[in-house]
Amino acid sequence: MKKLVIIRHGQSDWNLENRFTGWADVPLTERGVIEAGKAGRTLKENGFQFGLAYTSYLKRAIKTLWLLLEEMDQMYIPVYNSWRLNEKHYGTLTGLNKAETAEKYGEEQVKLWRRGFAIAPPALATTDPLHPCNDSKYAGINKNLLPGTESLKDTIDRIMPYWNDTIVPSFQHHDQILIAAHGNSLRGIVMHLKGLSEEEILEINIPTGIPYVFELSDQLELVKDYYLADEEELKKLMNEVASQGKAK
Amino acid sequence: MKKLVIIRHGQSDWNLENRFTGWADVPLTERGVIEAGKAGRTLKENGFQFGLAYTSYLKRAIKTLWLLLEEMDQMYIPVYNSWRLNEKHYGTLTGLNKAETAEKYGEEQVKLWRRGFAIAPPALATTDPLHPCNDSKYAGINKNLLPGTESLKDTIDRIMPYWNDTIVPSFQHHDQILIAAHGNSLRGIVMHLKGLSEEEILEINIPTGIPYVFELSDQLELVKDYYLADEEELKKLMNEVASQGKAK
Repeated sequence: MKKLVIIRHGQSDWNLENRFTGWADVPLTERGVIEAGKAGRTLKENGFQFGLAYTSYLKRAIKTLWLLLEEMDQMYIPVYNSWRLNEKHYGTLTGLNKAETAEKYGEEQVKLWRRGFAIAPPALATTDPLHPCNDSKYAGINKNLLPGTESLKDTIDRIMPYWNDTIVPSFQHHDQILIAAHGNSLRGIVMHLKGLSEEEILEINIPTGIPYVFELSDQLELVKDYYLADEEELKKLMNEVASQGKAK
Repeated sequence: MKKLVIIRHGQSDWNLENRFTGWADVPLTERGVIEAGKAGRTLKENGFQFGLAYTSYLKRAIKTLWLLLEEMDQMYIPVYNSWRLNEKHYGTLTGLNKAETAEKYGEEQVKLWRRGFAIAPPALATTDPLHPCNDSKYAGINKNLLPGTESLKDTIDRIMPYWNDTIVPSFQHHDQILIAAHGNSLRGIVMHLKGLSEEEILEINIPTGIPYVFELSDQLELVKDYYLADEEELKKLMNEVASQGKAK
């Protein structure tokens, strides 16, 4: 029996301000810090012992992972960072207040941009200082791979090679693996493991800071999946995520 | 020009209580947390940009590294943990108050145990729950390699393979590398880079929480080494470390 646990980072500064974040590297809020610690305690109480962990290049996911590992007293396990686990890139919408964008473009357009499977927002030019090819953090990565915008499909397409070539093989040596990442990058993994359609994955809202467990056979076929949280808490968090991007 | 920065973790709970710590996995104190953050700000102000970082399996070194990387906004760089960078193992002295031990065995014996190059304290039995071969953290490591006690020589002998086989080759791909570790494990690296004798390394007291920079040629020969701190602060910290283990 193998176990994959995925966790979406807790609340960040821009979640709180209702801005499109994507690849903007904003920190967790105090609530986000508390959510991460709580997730660590839950995993510890449930006896999890991770062989290794994966996370993105973005500090809100890395910090979530670090706080969680500290709470579990498993700070020494190997941690691998990949830009392929980053959040979806929101192009020119990055940094805009979601409610304002909805007022300007209409709620439907925002919904398409955020939730349309193959529809990407307008792209950042490669000359834009915000484009990842101008960020020293990504200096070691082939510039042609770095996006100026992404649809959910684009996001999933760049995650899957990392899943197949790096994460899947690591299950040969470890029974329990943890991924701390983002709402949309984690959707790619959920879509794959649960065999969901494009329509179905659009309806999945992964709540922040709640460990989501996938029990897998030795052939990595899904046996069952569940959140480590009570029903009521889960419903509240999912509604919160689903209501983001609605005009206020 | 290559740069290696080494840093000894900040104050831990047992430093504060003046106990032999070694492989006991105790957390940083609030002062230790502040020291790590300060070191990160100093490195940032001096323009350091690390390609990767190494640390031990012990949380006081890992937390020092994490706090420092957070302060530098370089949380995404690869971090490799190795038990070979752990502190010297103090055997049956682990957990004893240093002043009490000095009163019981005499200050000279304590000094020999702590500072004698090839003299190890009495060993923990492999059946002792405190022996690392009974700690799940080290489950992936060959039990025959895990010590029940160590002299400074033993400590350096187990660090050098990691230095030669892992750290040195990583300079082929990176110009600036960081190691966050412990007083005695870092002595091994200092001894090697500065070509010090056994007598000389015993006189070196690396202060806690101060970045120690080694500028190296492309062939990794030492060009110069210096602490990133002012003279007065440095002298105070070195005296503090040297006076540990004296009876009170």
